[in-house]
Amino acid sequence: MNLSDRWRICFDADDTLWHNERVFRMTQERFAELLRDFVEAGPLMERLLEAERRNLGHYGYGVKGFVLSMIETAIEVTEERVPASVIAELLAAGQEMLAHPIDLLPHAREAVEALAPSAELILVTKGDLLDQERKLAQSGLGDLFDGVEIVSEKRAETYRRIYEGADRAMMVGNSLKSDVIPSIEAGGWGVHVPHELTWDLEAAEPPEASPRFFQISDLGALPALILGLD
Amino acid sequence: MNLSDRWRICFDADDTLWHNERVFRMTQERFAELLRDFVEAGPLMERLLEAERRNLGHYGYGVKGFVLSMIETAIEVTEERVPASVIAELLAAGQEMLAHPIDLLPHAREAVEALAPSAELILVTKGDLLDQERKLAQSGLGDLFDGVEIVSEKRAETYRRIYEGADRAMMVGNSLKSDVIPSIEAGGWGVHVPHELTWDLEAAEPPEASPRFFQISDLGALPALILGLD
Repeated sequence: MNLSDRWRICFDADDTLWHNERVFRMTQERFAELLRDFVEAGPLMERLLEAERRNLGHYGYGVKGFVLSMIETAIEVTEERVPASVIAELLAAGQEMLAHPIDLLPHAREAVEALAPSAELILVTKGDLLDQERKLAQSGLGDLFDGVEIVSEKRAETYRRIYEGADRAMMVGNSLKSDVIPSIEAGGWGVHVPHELTWDLEAAEPPEASPRFFQISDLGALPALILGLD
Repeated sequence: MNLSDRWRICFDADDTLWHNERVFRMTQERFAELLRDFVEAGPLMERLLEAERRNLGHYGYGVKGFVLSMIETAIEVTEERVPASVIAELLAAGQEMLAHPIDLLPHAREAVEALAPSAELILVTKGDLLDQERKLAQSGLGDLFDGVEIVSEKRAETYRRIYEGADRAMMVGNSLKSDVIPSIEAGGWGVHVPHELTWDLEAAEPPEASPRFFQISDLGALPALILGLD
């Protein structure tokens, strides 16, 4: 495809290019199973979410902080009666998450390959540094990106910095809160590609009023959308 | 000071600009104290180091991985008899590490302030993304740096990328293995500022044969060293 303007197109990684949240959900199910003698799954998940929210300012995003929050929750809900063998299982679950194979989402490779020759592509992702690098390497998409930004938080100022010097900039992702809304605030487009699973801490209202807000059902529709805006 | 060449001077952060390893050592002492009924301090530290080395490929560097390795070691050495209350203490110790105030090393501010007007300064550090950003912000040195690179590993190729486009480049740090040797391999200078405490996994032989290797006792000597090379 040919674009007349110089576009900088930024992609979120987890649950935009490849599945991620379902690995967290599987681990949460295992967590609930391990603690079933102490607490029911529903209240356990609420306590876990509280711990994650409380710890976000210390741990940031990613698997390591998630495992630490699970261990903390396990100790709390059992009033320190959780056996060490259960903690050992949680550590093992975390290690498995960090080695989990990458499963690309529909049309992810196709969209990135279509855009790479005519636009500057940047991966913008939160999470653990090493784990995100590992996933990008395993995805086989690494060479198609011109840059990788692993950031501790996705705010409007994050996108302002990343968009510097570009004629037109866009962020594509599954999180309204972290990908779409702050990108629009920073003066770029925000393209929402909903994923069936979204972490509760990423929920937000869609910015329907903005002319720079778009929603597509999968990445297959992205090249045509950009051609139309060009 | 005035420099005739365009220098890119890179600084390591932990135990180069501010104390860090001593916070780890304090936590390790607490760890040994918590497990004293099960195992002696010496063998415990050996087991912890083994766990850290084994987990490095999954967890990378930083406090979160260190806490996970402590918990794993506690479970191992007690053959799953460690009480949950001890695990809770380890989690609390990790949270304290992540909130520990920054204590600059002698002459760190002075050297950075002297060089900032006449050279490009880049911070190059491993560790947890959010934690390293927090420490830089608290150090009060953030505005003096032109760039910050938080990397998952410091190899020659890391420095080759960071040194791209610079006339002359230098890395200054307390780790021969991660700061000095790979910088020299990448074609830059490597300046060693030894710290009294160095993590066992960072040990290496000094590259005495290289004309681009220097050692200074503290950062106060750095500006004069660079003036002499300019």
